[in-house]
Parts: sequence; structure tokens; C-alpha cells
Amino acid sequence: MRPSGIITLLTDFGLKDAYVGVMKGVMLSINRNAHLVDISHQVAHGSIAEASELLLESFPFFPQGTVHLVVVDPGVGSGRRPIALRAENHLFVGPDNGVFWPIVNRGPDVEIIHLTEERYFLERVSRTFHGRDLFAPVAAHLSCGLELSKAGKPIEDPVSLPTTSPQFDGRRIKGKVVRVDHFGNLITDIAERDLRRFPDPDRVRVEAGNLRLKGVKKTYSDVKEGEALALIGSAGRLEIGVNLGRACDRLEKGSGGSALGTEVEASEDPSD
Amino acid sequence: MRPSGIITLLTDFGLKDAYVGVMKGVMLSINRNAHLVDISHQVAHGSIAEASELLLESFPFFPQGTVHLVVVDPGVGSGRRPIALRAENHLFVGPDNGVFWPIVNRGPDVEIIHLTEERYFLERVSRTFHGRDLFAPVAAHLSCGLELSKAGKPIEDPVSLPTTSPQFDGRRIKGKVVRVDHFGNLITDIAERDLRRFPDPDRVRVEAGNLRLKGVKKTYSDVKEGEALALIGSAGRLEIGVNLGRACDRLEKGSGGSALGTEVEASEDPSD
Amino acid sequence: MRPSGIITLLTDFGLKDAYVGVMKGVMLSINRNAHLVDISHQVAHGSIAEASELLLESFPFFPQGTVHLVVVDPGVGSGRRPIALRAENHLFVGPDNGVFWPIVNRGPDVEIIHLTEERYFLERVSRTFHGRDLFAPVAAHLSCGLELSKAGKPIEDPVSLPTTSPQFDGRRIKGKVVRVDHFGNLITDIAERDLRRFPDPDRVRVEAGNLRLKGVKKTYSDVKEGEALALIGSAGRLEIGVNLGRACDRLEKGSGGSALGTEVEASEDPSD
Repeated sequence: MRPSGIITLLTDFGLKDAYVGVMKGVMLSINRNAHLVDISHQVAHGSIAEASELLLESFPFFPQGTVHLVVVDPGVGSGRRPIALRAENHLFVGPDNGVFWPIVNRGPDVEIIHLTEERYFLERVSRTFHGRDLFAPVAAHLSCGLELSKAGKPIEDPVSLPTTSPQFDGRRIKGKVVRVDHFGNLITDIAERDLRRFPDPDRVRVEAGNLRLKGVKKTYSDVKEGEALALIGSAGRLEIGVNLGRACDRLEKGSGGSALGTEVEASEDPSD
Repeated sequence: MRPSGIITLLTDFGLKDAYVGVMKGVMLSINRNAHLVDISHQVAHGSIAEASELLLESFPFFPQGTVHLVVVDPGVGSGRRPIALRAENHLFVGPDNGVFWPIVNRGPDVEIIHLTEERYFLERVSRTFHGRDLFAPVAAHLSCGLELSKAGKPIEDPVSLPTTSPQFDGRRIKGKVVRVDHFGNLITDIAERDLRRFPDPDRVRVEAGNLRLKGVKKTYSDVKEGEALALIGSAGRLEIGVNLGRACDRLEKGSGGSALGTEVEASEDPSD
Repeated sequence: MRPSGIITLLTDFGLKDAYVGVMKGVMLSINRNAHLVDISHQVAHGSIAEASELLLESFPFFPQGTVHLVVVDPGVGSGRRPIALRAENHLFVGPDNGVFWPIVNRGPDVEIIHLTEERYFLERVSRTFHGRDLFAPVAAHLSCGLELSKAGKPIEDPVSLPTTSPQFDGRRIKGKVVRVDHFGNLITDIAERDLRRFPDPDRVRVEAGNLRLKGVKKTYSDVKEGEALALIGSAGRLEIGVNLGRACDRLEKGSGGSALGTEVEASEDPSD
């Protein structure tokens, strides 16, 4: 696989500090021609599930041979292994904490390496910032063409991430809200293909907490400004939105105060 | 016109999700050497007027042949046309919703194309994310030298944006606050040249809501820390600021609770 | 010194407006091949001390010959001098307001130039945006190989920044919180080497306001989730954190309501 020279960055570091800039400095010191692309640095602190979602959504749109650096690393400095993967002609670098599990799960032909070759790390490796000292330099070396197998030892037991798929009981699909985006849209784990069980989108009824929606629409402007709707979002999943508004603010939240995890039910309207 | 290879990005997508990163992946898949520059992704949700302001303020500082991608697109998936323009030796790509109107308005020699050539889109075009599926790929092709006229059909009736110019009644210029910046500065639609009607800047009186300011200053530090002032801002427009503070927080807002739209009046002080 | 072609950007401009994008347009108009890297644009409004901290933390991780552009410039348009420096084979451009003082202080061989050669500025220099009109163009010219001495006149009296070092009274080191990062970690001015006075990290007691911590740990996950700890952070300084939580929210703040400046005391526990 030829490297594309592109490295994407996905972290929970925020944009206030110099942490992201420092990782970029490290990478450019190794590969002056690397093309660095931010995916997000606003992942919720330590949220492996959210990082995993964003990674899955973004990596297929990059050229093959791209290196995807993910540093959401609540176990930094503990025993968790640093790893790198090759899957679907992309490379991935980060902690072995489950963040790459959905990618490992997608394909049969995934190569996973425990990063043990210290010659590809910075000289001094801290206990609190492996993004800078270990992951960034390895990513930069891979973007220059370093063979993955040279970076460490193959492993076959990466940490998995507990995932629940939506349930279908013959009449209803039960899923949940897995992400709330910048616009306040509630993104569920119910895929477009799950909904094909109900042949007529106009007769699908979607319920989430206090929200009761009729029909799966095509786009936000299919309803009036300020009106809620269910639709298939840009990542191919059932989503609840409000045309020019925030669905998140319409939802009466449970005791946790968060929309995340809210149950979502799709069923066919019998009354029509 | 030779392409500069630079593509600027201006959206209301925020930085939390992968939406901007995904558009960059799409563009780099088409033009590996594109130089991508973020203008802002913090435009208020669906605010065509704000996007338009930021575009006008930024594009002239880029080299000729730059492609400016604007995705503030409340009507995505509806009938609104996707368009691209050539004006003042720059290229612009985005929805035909008025966001480019001030640019169309500036010059006589503007070429506008309705983007109909699907060969320059992604293979599958969603109904909710034309930024990814249509505008980003067209922008990338233009940055490689694709001739604008090859991307679709010429049109001459782009959507216009209602604009109100400041009024002069012989004694007073009446304008309004059109933008509040990161520092809380209140930026008006009154231009430096409008104020030339009053020859002595020290005798100009500026009023906005509860704020009454004497003189048009040169820079923030012309007043004491924490003091409000009127000055000509970096985009050549009358602006109300506070030295090392936030003018926005000083203004008693009307019923809407927003500083946007607040009337601003400039007149010559008769008492001196 | 050969230029690396990289220019880093550090400002208090935020990401909402076009100000950063405009500076990038100016630089790319001069050096189309410049590689622009954001350090942070979220420095608190006019906080020279914070900018200085972030600069010191980030610049050594970039290749030599990199230009570091800092625009935290509360005195813009006043008499303060625009300057550029060469130190440790890096270049620095920004206002002479003390932001570069710690860098001047580090080494004997620092060249400082008052930027007076207007041919390297934009044609029209505003009174409020020297980042765009003066610093960005000079940075771009330096990144192309312009010799520093050609940009103005040498000076030897740059503005200094009042700095207080931690005090050691024989039993206790007294320092303070100088930065709160994105994760809510309280970063102090007490360096790792200061703490070497106490040979056993497990017996060091750290106190800050209401927080009383036993031992200097190695990494966040050395304590249970939600528990506070003292550790040496990634910049080599004593830091108070909470594993997967925000130390900043645990601290009972004084009358100012800010964690910044809170006294931090490290001593050896006599009771063991």
C-alpha cells in the first residue's frame, strides 16, 4: 500500500491548549510533507464510543494509504497497549482501548501491531502524553512509508467495544441515540437498511422519549421551520432533527440529563 | 485564470463532528495537492447573512484563482440550485440561496453556473449533505483547473439577499449592528466612506441603544481599559468596542435579546 | 538558518470570525508553499502570559527554521513596537509586549529586530489589525528565507514580562496555578526539578485551596475514576488533575472566581 501522505487527527484535546499543535510539530519534524487534517478535537473527555463513531464516519472518504491518528486515551500511561492497524487499505494508530473495534469488526483482513519498536517514538516518552511521544511519531513514520510490521509485534486480541445492535421483534425496531451533533440532531444506531423492513417510509412511526414523529422524510426542509422530523441522515442512519432548530432541546431528557442513550423505536403505523 | 490550488471553507457545521473533516477527505481524494484553509465553521445555524459577511471580508486576501467553498445551506435537498461563480478572478461554490449575492453585486463581469454535471459529484448524492457529495467535489475539480463552464449551465438569475444600506437624512447616518465578533465588538453596516460626511472624527457622536460615544477613535487603546469607544474596524466599517472588554455585554438588548440589528446612529456633535 | 517553510499561529482571535483565515490568505499570497499550523486561537482576550506559556510549550517540537507568529496584541495601534526574534534556531514574530520574554530569557544568543521595513507589510496598514497587515506578511517573508536583519533595526531592550518563580523556604515549595487546560487540569509553575528536593514522590503532600493530595503520581489512571491527584504533567510541571474528571471544578475558588493564581504548596509529609 502506497502512503497518501495524509494524516487525520481525532482527539478529545479541545482547541484551547497547545496539545494538538505540539503533535503536529512532532509529525512535521519527521515528515515535512505530511498533510495534516483535523477530524475533531471536541470528542467528549475519554469517550471511546464517540471517537469510534466519528472515525467510522470519516475514514472511508479519505484516499487509501491515509494514516488515521486517534488519541482518546483515558488509560494513558497504564498497561493498555499502543497499537496500529491496517484495514481496508487505511492505517490507524492509537491506544488499544476499543476505539478501533468497529474497524477490526468490519473486515477479515486486518493486520494489528502492538507498537513496541521504541526507535519510532520520541526519545523521552512521558506517562501522560503518548499522543505526542509515541502515537504522533509512529503515525508520521507510517505516512512516510514505514512498513507496519516493522513497528512492533502482531497481535490478534485487540480490546473490543461493547456494542448493541438495534433489536427487531417482528413489529418494532428498538435502537437508541448514539450521538448528538452540532446542530442538535439525534443520531441513532438504526441503519437505513434496518428500516427497509417497513416498505412505506410515510407510514413509519418514530418515537423517542416525548417525541412522536410520523413518516421518514428525505431532508430537513420537508417540514416547516421549527418542526421536528425523522429522516435518514448523511451517515445512512435514522436521525431525529428539527428544521433550522435543535431536536436535542425538544427531547425531555431522563434523570441523566443527556439525550445519549435515549431509546428510539420505529414501527409501522397500523392505522393507515 | 490559473488555479492557486487553495480552497477556503466556510460553513455552519461547527467543529465537534466529522462533517468538515469528511469534506476535506473528499477534496483531497480528488486533488491531493489542494491547500485547504478554514475561514470559519462557527457561522450561526443557517445564517446566510453572516456567511456572506465573512466571505466578503476574507476572499480578497487570498491569491487569485482560489476556490471559496461556502456551505451554509438551510435548503439542502430542496429545490434550491447548487451553483458556482467566477468573480474578480476568484471562484465560489455553494448553494444558490443569496450567500453570494454581495459578490454578484460587486462586479459587472460575473459568470454564474448552475451545477448540473453530475460527473463532478460523488457517485451517490444524499439529500442532506451536499457539502460532502456535491460542493466539495466540484470545488476540488475547479482547484485542479476544471473550466467553470464545463460544470453546468450558465444562469443569470441568482437568488438575491435583502440588503439595507445605511440611511443619511442630511444630519444623521442611521445603520445597524450586522455582526458581533469574538471579542464582543459590535460591527455595523456604516462604512468609513459614509462617515467622511463628517469632517472632524472627534466631533462625531455615535449612539447605539444605551451606548453614547463621543468621537471616532483610531484604535482600542485610545481609551482606558474597560472603556467603550467607536472606531473604524479592520474591515473598514464603524464598530463599537471596549478596550480589553466586550461591547456586546454593555449593550442593553431589546426584546429579542440579541445585539444583532440594533440601530446605530452617527451624527455631528453641534455643541462643540 | 534554513527556513522549514512552516509557520505556526497563536492568537486570541477565536474561531468564529474570519480573522485567522484572513491572516492565512495574506501569508499564502506571499508564500504559496507555506505550511500553516494552528497552535491555539483560544487564548484569553489579551492574555500575554497565557500566550507566552503556550508558545514555550509548543515551539521546541517544531523543526528548526520554523516561524512562530503570535498575535495577542492588546496594544495594537498604540506605540508598542512590532518585533521579530531569532532564538534557538527558530523565528518569532509579534508585538513587543512581553509575550516573547521567556524566550529572550532562555538563551544568550537572541537577535531581536524592530520591524520597520514597510516594504514587507501590506500596502495599507490599519490601526487595529497588525496581525493581518504587518505580522502575517513579515512572517511569510521570513518563511521564504528573508534575512531577519533585513526586516528592521536591532534592539536590545524588549519589553519584559513580570514572572515569579516558585519559592522554597527549606521545607515547602510555594508556587501557583498558571494555566487551566481543556480537561480542567490545574497546571502550576512548579517544575519537575523543583520537586527533586523531595526524594520520595509518595511522601510529597500537595495543597491547593481546599484540595489536599498525598503523593505525586505518574499518570491519571493511577487513581480511581473521579479521584483527584497530583502528577508531573506533559510539560514537566506539577499539575493537579482528576482521573476522567475536572480538577478545576473541585477547587473552591477565591473571590475572583478563577482558579488562575491559586497558591499551590508542595511539602514532604513528616508523619510517614
